[in-house]
Amino acid sequence: MKLYDFSVAPNPRRVRIFVAEKGLNIPVQEIDLYARQSRTPEFLKKNPAGQVPLLELDDGSYLAESVAICRYLEGLHPDPNLMGRDTREQAFIEMWSRRMELELFGGVDRYFQNTDPMFKGRFPQFADYAEAQRAYAVQRLTRMDGELAGREFIAADRYTIADITALVAIDLFTGLAKQPFPSGLPNVKRWHDTVSSRASAKA
Amino acid sequence: MKLYDFSVAPNPRRVRIFVAEKGLNIPVQEIDLYARQSRTPEFLKKNPAGQVPLLELDDGSYLAESVAICRYLEGLHPDPNLMGRDTREQAFIEMWSRRMELELFGGVDRYFQNTDPMFKGRFPQFADYAEAQRAYAVQRLTRMDGELAGREFIAADRYTIADITALVAIDLFTGLAKQPFPSGLPNVKRWHDTVSSRASAKA
Repeated sequence: MKLYDFSVAPNPRRVRIFVAEKGLNIPVQEIDLYARQSRTPEFLKKNPAGQVPLLELDDGSYLAESVAICRYLEGLHPDPNLMGRDTREQAFIEMWSRRMELELFGGVDRYFQNTDPMFKGRFPQFADYAEAQRAYAVQRLTRMDGELAGREFIAADRYTIADITALVAIDLFTGLAKQPFPSGLPNVKRWHDTVSSRASAKA
Repeated sequence: MKLYDFSVAPNPRRVRIFVAEKGLNIPVQEIDLYARQSRTPEFLKKNPAGQVPLLELDDGSYLAESVAICRYLEGLHPDPNLMGRDTREQAFIEMWSRRMELELFGGVDRYFQNTDPMFKGRFPQFADYAEAQRAYAVQRLTRMDGELAGREFIAADRYTIADITALVAIDLFTGLAKQPFPSGLPNVKRWHDTVSSRASAKA
């Protein structure tokens, strides 16, 4: 296996944290998105969407999409479990992971893509829409603060892929997107401190 | 089990088609989103996101998010298989389902939500952003036409959840969002005719 990665980008980080939590050692090839290395004819043959992360399997096929890559690795290496041990747990972890992805990560990412100069000329940017998405993300974090009251982790009594999705979303918000960590959210803050202190968060 | 549904809406339809393909008989309760029935205190206790579909389990807990509900039903009723028979197949079907969801369904849905009068006053709408999303969805359909060349289904040699996601996205585009079926896409048209002719498509 080989993982096509870009160390700066949030979606590859989701997979890197997942891999670190599993204790796996997968060879990595850096694809510099700033240098448009995912848009070369050679890379587009591997992934026509021109995106990383991308996992090259031992049979030569290519698996794209962060969560699909995680599910593949979870199937090959079930422990430690990050996506659910049985049908019921798998479903509830997926519910929470999707909420964090579609609502939180989605809002943050649409804000970022509609404001960052890096994307200028690659697709149209809309400042008013960006601001609405920023507000939507902060709103979602506020709701999350209630959800995390009395809970250590988002989806289960242990760290799961839902925590990874939310961690990467928040770090995109306060990192590349240069926004302050919203104040007055003690439960989100406590949870973020906890998951950030795991060794995998450095991935 | 009980499924909280809204017959007009696209996300509940994804679950209804899935249920029909499985041949399951799950009692349904209609929640009229036009009448804001998902925003009553009673419903918000079941799903704080105020959304359908929502599955009430026999133990009284509530499972939200279309794909999480589908995964739960797939675990309970593995045949006919719609989400992959083994680790490798599950991963590739998820890759395709996510591409259809994030790229196609996402674009269509953001167009719809930023133009339809139904959403006026519920959240801000941005006409220029909507138009960019409409163009993005048509672009994705154009790419899909290439992907479907020589293929009967999207993700495997049989009908899967990826086909459901794409079918519902296209029908949202040409239905509620009142857009013409893009011309010059013979493979998408053939595929759409095929999947629309299944009994489950009426769900």
